[in-house]
Amino acid sequence: MKKINQCVSKAECRGYNFMGRIWIEGKDGAFLGYGRVLLLERIRQYGSISEAARSLDMSYRHAWELVESMNNQSTSPLVETATGGKGGGGARLTADGERAVKLFQEFHDDFQDFLIKKSKQIKFRKR
Amino acid sequence: MKKINQCVSKAECRGYNFMGRIWIEGKDGAFLGYGRVLLLERIRQYGSISEAARSLDMSYRHAWELVESMNNQSTSPLVETATGGKGGGGARLTADGERAVKLFQEFHDDFQDFLIKKSKQIKFRKR
Repeated sequence: MKKINQCVSKAECRGYNFMGRIWIEGKDGAFLGYGRVLLLERIRQYGSISEAARSLDMSYRHAWELVESMNNQSTSPLVETATGGKGGGGARLTADGERAVKLFQEFHDDFQDFLIKKSKQIKFRKR
Repeated sequence: MKKINQCVSKAECRGYNFMGRIWIEGKDGAFLGYGRVLLLERIRQYGSISEAARSLDMSYRHAWELVESMNNQSTSPLVETATGGKGGGGARLTADGERAVKLFQEFHDDFQDFLIKKSKQIKFRKR
């Protein structure tokens, strides 16, 4: 699956860039966004929340809070830890975690297509 | 024309909100976004940069800088002042200014449609 490695989508039109950000909110506010999905991908890659956090220059505490926020807003957890606790010995994405990554990736890809389409439709002169 | 009176677009899907922001960048960075287009609409309404700024709780200086930024990044100015200076006696949108407002409004409306379409396509369970 293509990695989400940029925070902002853009499409160029005669020197103008059509830009945008997307995210999904749940009952508590932020649910899925570029940063959270990147964290999920890194957890999949490293099999560990702390390793994933380190790879993103993020504190373990912050990564843990993001995972908790995502887990609390889903029908079932997106991330499962081996020992079920903070000091856990490993973590992995659940089937719902994989679905969430895929859902956001599709949302992102379609948004890129939307921006490209718009930038082609709209002509605007530039000095 | 419909007023742009919200900063963030959203579409709901089973308790999840599909959210997003859009903007257009030019050679100097930000060119058109929700705040700038609202300022243009208020300049049209009040015929004055200072009145427009006041209606948005924005300093005159900041409003002037935003107008300058937009004017400098267009083929021709989006806003014209009667005396051509800071202490000017009135301001109005040019034809390109009207076009810019319309362009961004269409971008915004199509983005709303995109978010609604996505939220209908994607099913995601919620606790």
